[in-house]
Amino acid sequence: MSRIPVAILGATGTVGQKFIRLLADHPWFEIAQVAASADRIGKRYGDEVRWRETTPLPAAVANLTLTAAEPMGGVPIAFSALDAGIAREIEPAFARAGTLVVSNASAFRMEPDVPLLIPEVNGAHLGLLAPQRVARGWSGGIIANPNCSTAALVVALAPLHQAFGLRRVVVATLQAASGAGYPGVPSLDLLGNVIPFIGGEEEKIERETRKLLGTFVDTTVRDAAVTVSAMVHRVPVVDGHMVSVSLAFDRAPTPEEAMAVLEQFHGDAAVTALPSSPTPVIEVDRRPDRPQSRLDLDRGGGMAVTVGRVRACPLHHLRLVALSHNLVRGAAGAAVQNAEWAVASGVVPR
Amino acid sequence: MSRIPVAILGATGTVGQKFIRLLADHPWFEIAQVAASADRIGKRYGDEVRWRETTPLPAAVANLTLTAAEPMGGVPIAFSALDAGIAREIEPAFARAGTLVVSNASAFRMEPDVPLLIPEVNGAHLGLLAPQRVARGWSGGIIANPNCSTAALVVALAPLHQAFGLRRVVVATLQAASGAGYPGVPSLDLLGNVIPFIGGEEEKIERETRKLLGTFVDTTVRDAAVTVSAMVHRVPVVDGHMVSVSLAFDRAPTPEEAMAVLEQFHGDAAVTALPSSPTPVIEVDRRPDRPQSRLDLDRGGGMAVTVGRVRACPLHHLRLVALSHNLVRGAAGAAVQNAEWAVASGVVPR
Amino acid sequence: MSRIPVAILGATGTVGQKFIRLLADHPWFEIAQVAASADRIGKRYGDEVRWRETTPLPAAVANLTLTAAEPMGGVPIAFSALDAGIAREIEPAFARAGTLVVSNASAFRMEPDVPLLIPEVNGAHLGLLAPQRVARGWSGGIIANPNCSTAALVVALAPLHQAFGLRRVVVATLQAASGAGYPGVPSLDLLGNVIPFIGGEEEKIERETRKLLGTFVDTTVRDAAVTVSAMVHRVPVVDGHMVSVSLAFDRAPTPEEAMAVLEQFHGDAAVTALPSSPTPVIEVDRRPDRPQSRLDLDRGGGMAVTVGRVRACPLHHLRLVALSHNLVRGAAGAAVQNAEWAVASGVVPR
Amino acid sequence: MSRIPVAILGATGTVGQKFIRLLADHPWFEIAQVAASADRIGKRYGDEVRWRETTPLPAAVANLTLTAAEPMGGVPIAFSALDAGIAREIEPAFARAGTLVVSNASAFRMEPDVPLLIPEVNGAHLGLLAPQRVARGWSGGIIANPNCSTAALVVALAPLHQAFGLRRVVVATLQAASGAGYPGVPSLDLLGNVIPFIGGEEEKIERETRKLLGTFVDTTVRDAAVTVSAMVHRVPVVDGHMVSVSLAFDRAPTPEEAMAVLEQFHGDAAVTALPSSPTPVIEVDRRPDRPQSRLDLDRGGGMAVTVGRVRACPLHHLRLVALSHNLVRGAAGAAVQNAEWAVASGVVPR
Repeated sequence: MSRIPVAILGATGTVGQKFIRLLADHPWFEIAQVAASADRIGKRYGDEVRWRETTPLPAAVANLTLTAAEPMGGVPIAFSALDAGIAREIEPAFARAGTLVVSNASAFRMEPDVPLLIPEVNGAHLGLLAPQRVARGWSGGIIANPNCSTAALVVALAPLHQAFGLRRVVVATLQAASGAGYPGVPSLDLLGNVIPFIGGEEEKIERETRKLLGTFVDTTVRDAAVTVSAMVHRVPVVDGHMVSVSLAFDRAPTPEEAMAVLEQFHGDAAVTALPSSPTPVIEVDRRPDRPQSRLDLDRGGGMAVTVGRVRACPLHHLRLVALSHNLVRGAAGAAVQNAEWAVASGVVPR
Repeated sequence: MSRIPVAILGATGTVGQKFIRLLADHPWFEIAQVAASADRIGKRYGDEVRWRETTPLPAAVANLTLTAAEPMGGVPIAFSALDAGIAREIEPAFARAGTLVVSNASAFRMEPDVPLLIPEVNGAHLGLLAPQRVARGWSGGIIANPNCSTAALVVALAPLHQAFGLRRVVVATLQAASGAGYPGVPSLDLLGNVIPFIGGEEEKIERETRKLLGTFVDTTVRDAAVTVSAMVHRVPVVDGHMVSVSLAFDRAPTPEEAMAVLEQFHGDAAVTALPSSPTPVIEVDRRPDRPQSRLDLDRGGGMAVTVGRVRACPLHHLRLVALSHNLVRGAAGAAVQNAEWAVASGVVPR
Repeated sequence: MSRIPVAILGATGTVGQKFIRLLADHPWFEIAQVAASADRIGKRYGDEVRWRETTPLPAAVANLTLTAAEPMGGVPIAFSALDAGIAREIEPAFARAGTLVVSNASAFRMEPDVPLLIPEVNGAHLGLLAPQRVARGWSGGIIANPNCSTAALVVALAPLHQAFGLRRVVVATLQAASGAGYPGVPSLDLLGNVIPFIGGEEEKIERETRKLLGTFVDTTVRDAAVTVSAMVHRVPVVDGHMVSVSLAFDRAPTPEEAMAVLEQFHGDAAVTALPSSPTPVIEVDRRPDRPQSRLDLDRGGGMAVTVGRVRACPLHHLRLVALSHNLVRGAAGAAVQNAEWAVASGVVPR
Repeated sequence: MSRIPVAILGATGTVGQKFIRLLADHPWFEIAQVAASADRIGKRYGDEVRWRETTPLPAAVANLTLTAAEPMGGVPIAFSALDAGIAREIEPAFARAGTLVVSNASAFRMEPDVPLLIPEVNGAHLGLLAPQRVARGWSGGIIANPNCSTAALVVALAPLHQAFGLRRVVVATLQAASGAGYPGVPSLDLLGNVIPFIGGEEEKIERETRKLLGTFVDTTVRDAAVTVSAMVHRVPVVDGHMVSVSLAFDRAPTPEEAMAVLEQFHGDAAVTALPSSPTPVIEVDRRPDRPQSRLDLDRGGGMAVTVGRVRACPLHHLRLVALSHNLVRGAAGAAVQNAEWAVASGVVPR
C-alpha cells in the first residue's frame, strides 16, 4: 500500500525529533508535514532543529519546510509533541478538521471520552473514539498515550492486575533528563544530584494508572479500583525511566508466578502484529542487578519493558523494578504504536 | 582535659579517611593509632593512603606509622571502619583487651547485646553495654552505628514514631557512590546509570530500623512493631543518600503536624551537648524541590538530616524525602558521635 | 574600622551568589545593596534567589530588598556579575557617579585604560585607574578580573614568564558547567558528554593573557609578546576549570626549576596581606594524577591554583596542568581580591 | 564462501565483548573459540561474562565453552583483547602455531617488523608481515591496531599529512571511561571529575603516530618526521575519545582546504570495499559545537571519525577537533577491519 501522510506538531523538540527518527523508515506512515512555533514557519526543518539524536537527520525530513500548526489537506494523522497548554488549543482544531490527533501531550488524557491507550494493555479503550466524535461533532478525534513514567509502570502492572487483582501500589521513579525536554533541566541542577520533584508528575501517575487499567464498558471507561502512591525523582541519566514498586493484590502471587505471567504477557494478536509492538512486550531479567537505566533501555527497539528483581515484599506482596525508554515506550514510540492501532482498527481511512 | 587517644581501624579506606578528617580537630579525641592491612604495617600513613578528601591530609596524621589491627596500650577507644568479615574477628579482640570498639561495620549490629545507636534517637540503648561486658567477659565492648541509608531514614522517622506511632514504611533509597567504598562501583557501571541493587542493603534497612526504634527494657532492646519494605538504588552521585518514604501511623498526622514534630526534634540535653550533635537535628526544607543530594548533604556539618516534600499519601498517611551525608551521619560522623556519647555517659574512663 | 558598604550587581545569578557567600563574613566589606533585573526590584532577595550554594544563605542578605542597578549614595564599591551586554551600559553609570566598579564582566576588560587585574601577577596595572578617571571624567572607575579559564592559566604562567620569558602557549581547557551560569548548559547537552566549544572563550583567553602578562609603563599597559592558542572544552563537572598547557620559553627550564619557581611565587607583600590572597598562591602537587577538578578546586579557599604534571614537552619546553575554582579565583573571589587591592592601594576612600 | 573461524582472546572484557558484538553477524568471520583466564576454562561464556553491551548477547556465543588461550586447530585468525603483559607471552605462541594474531594489545605495536595498521591510512604496512614471518620463523604472525586515542588522531591527521606535510602536533585528549576497561576507573574517581593522567598513554600517542604516518620502503617502515606532544585527560564520558589538536605543516592550508581534503579522504579501493570500512571515513561537521562525545561516536557504525571546528591557529596553522568510538575505531572495530584487510590481501588462507 502507499504510506499514509502524517504531520508532526512540535517537530523540533526532544519528542518531535524522536518521532522523526521512528517514522523515518516506517512501513505505514510518511512524514508530510512538520509544524513548529510561529517564528519558524517557512524555514527549513534541517536549519531550525538542534538535532540531538545519535542517528543522522534523514535528508528528506531536513528539507521539509516548517508549517504553522494548522491542518493541511490530505494528512489524516497528526502526531502531537506539543506542550499541554498549546495542545489544549491546537489539538481540537485538528480533530474538528478531520484529523486523528495522536497525542503525547497531557492536555486531554484524563477527558472521559479520550482513549488513553497502551495497545497491549487496553486496546479496547479505542472504543471511546466513536462516542467522542459524536459528542464533540468531530470527524477526526484525539487519542493519547500516557505520561512517560506511567507507561513503564502500567505495562509491568497490567498482566499482574489481570492475573491477581491489583489493589495497592507504592511506586518510586528514577527519571531521566530527557523526560523534561530541551533545554529542560539545567546541568547545574542535575550533575551529580537527585531532584525529588517533578511538577504534576505524581498526580499524573496516580490518575492515569487507574484509567489505563480500567474497563471499557458500553461507551465509557471505568477506572480500576487501584490505589497508587507515587514518589518521583529526577536522576542524572540521559534516557530511561526506572520505576520501583511495592504491590498488593487480591490473590498474592509468588515471585515465580508473577514472572511467568509477566513473560507470557502479550496484547491481542492484532496488537502483536503492529510494526511497533515488541516481542516480548516484557523482558524479565533474572540477573540480580538488572534492569539498569543505561544498559536496558533499548530492548525491543525501546518499546519493551524490562522487569527485574521480582521478590516478596515484607509489607505488601511483591516488589519489582521496571524500566523503559521514556522517549520511545514513554512518548513517541507509544504514539506511533497508537496510530498503528488506530489504522489497524479501521478508525482512520487508508 | 587532655584528649583521649583513639585508634582507627581500616584507616586508609573511604570511611577511614572521613574519620581522620572529622577527628583532625576534635576537642575530645586524638588520633594515636592508625591500623591497616598486613602489607602496609610499618609504613607511613601519608605514603600509603590515596587521600580522597577535599581538605588536606593533616600533617600529624600523615606522619603516623601504620600498625597492625591489634590493641595498643593506652588507647581506650577504637573506631572501626573494617569490612564486616574482618570486623567479626578483630573487633572482639579489641573488646576483650579493654578497648571500646565504636564500629561502623555491620558485623555485630544485630547482636542482641550490642547497642545499635543514634544518640538523638535511642541513646538509652547504650545500657546494653553493661550486660554485654558481663556476658562476654569483656572489659571493653562494642557499640555500633547503623547502615548509611538506615541512618537518614531513622533520624527522620524517630520523631514521627514517638509522636504518632509508626506502623508501616515503604522506603526507596537513592544512594551515592561513596557508600560502596573505594574502589567500589566501577565508573562504567555508574556513569549515567541507575543500579537497582546493593547486596544485603534492603535487609539491613528493614532489620536495623526495627531495632533502632525499639525500646530498652531492663537489659534488652525490644524491636519496634514497624514493618519496613526497602527498595534500594545506586545513583551517579558522589556523596549523599536520599530516602523517599510512604508512612502509615497509629494516629495520622497532617503534613503540618509532622513538620512541626520534625523541626522540634532533639535528643536529651546531654546528647545535644555532644560536639558532633547538630542543631537542629532535622532541617525541614519547605521549598518544593528539596532536599537535593548535592546541595543539602553538608548541613549541620553533615550530621543534620534534611527533610522535605512532607505531603499526604493516597495509600498510607504521609510521604516525605530525607537526605543525609552517608559518610558523616551515615558512617564516620555517627561513630564519632557514638564515642562522644559513650564518654559523656561515663562508660569509657577518661 | 567599620566595614565598607558594597553593592552586588546581578546578585541572583551564579556569580552573584558566590559574591554573597564570599562577602558574608568579609572583614572589610559589608553588603549594602543587591541589584537585579527590573522585574525583581522591590522584592526580598531571599524570595527571589534560587540559592545554589551548599552553605546557607545568610539571613541578613536574605532580608535585603532588591534594588534597580543604579548607584546608591554611600556605597563606594559595586561588584558586577552582570552579563557583558548589560554591563556595557550600567557599569559606566556607576563609575560616573563615583563608584568603583569591580567587574567580573568581559565588557571593558580589553579597554586600554581599564586595569585587568590579578593582584599577585600584575598589581601595578591598577595604575591605569588614574588616567582612566581623567580621560573619562569619572570619579569612580572600572577595574576588571579576567575570564574564568584565563585566571587559572595566567596565575600558573606568570612566575614562569618572569623567570624564563614565555613565548608560546598551547592551552586546552576542560571547563565546568558553572562557568556558563544558570540555567546555562542544559543537562541533555552535558551529561556524559564533552562540548568542544564555548562562544568567544578562545579569543578571550588569547587576548587577556597578553594583557595580564603585559607591563605597565607610564600610563599604559604593553601586551606581553606571547602567542597563545586556546582550545576550549566544556566537560560534565560542576565547578573547577582545568587547563593543560604546552609552553615555549626564551630560556628553557627543567621541570624541577619550573616547580621551584611556581612554589615560591607570591605577589608583593601588600598583596599577600589581602584577606582573599591565598598562601601559597600556587600549590604544586607532585602526585602523578593531580590536580583533579573535583578534589583540588577548594585549595586556598578556592583562590589557590594547583599545578601538577610539570614535565618536558617533545615539541616546546614544558607541559603542565593547572586548576582553579572558576567561581572563586575565576570570578567572584578574583573580584573581591581586586577590591581589596584597590582599598589597600588607597584608590577607594575608606 | 563459508565463514572463516576466528578466536577471541580475552573474550570476557570490555574489548572482548565489543569483538563479539561486531562479529555476531560478520559476513566473513565466525566466532569459533572464546578464550579466557585459567579459572574460567571449561565454563559457558554466557555464564561467565558480565555482558555490558546494550544489544543482547548472541545465543550462539553465550553457549560457547571458554577455552585456554592456546591455539586450536582450524582457526586461522585470533583477535587479541589481552592485556599487554599477557599478550607478550600468548600472541607469539599463536603466531608460531600458524595463527594470524590481530591484536589490540600494545605489546608488539612498536616492534619494527609488526605492522601497526589503519587500512585507510597505511594499508601498505601490511607488507611487514612477510619479513616478520621469515625473521621469526612464524607461519602465522602478528598485526596490530593503534591505541584508542591514537586511532582518532591519526585518521584525522593522515589526509592532512599527505596533502600538506605535517610537522608538529600538540594534541589534548578527552578520553572516555571505557578506554580503561572493566572494572577500570572507580566511579568515585570519575563522577564529576577530570583526571589529567593515563599511564603510558602520552608516550603511546607520540610514538605510534610517527609509525602510522610512516612510509613502507622495501621491508621496513620509516617513521614520519612529525613531532607530537600529547596531553591526556580522562573525563566522565562512557564511550568516545575526543582529540583537540594544533597543527603545523610544510604548506599551510586554509581551513576550507583542510576540510575539503578531510572529506575526500578514503583508502585504496580494496580498503573501501572491506565490510568494516566506513563511507565516508571522515565526516566533517560544520556546526560550531560538534563533534560531541555522546552524540557523534556512532557515525559510520563507530568506524567513522568526525572532525569539527577546523580553524586557523594563532601559533601553528590549524586547529581542529576529532572524535571516534574508542571501542570500535579505537579497538575491536579496528582489529576486525585489520583482519579483513589481511584476508583481502591474501595473507590468510581462506
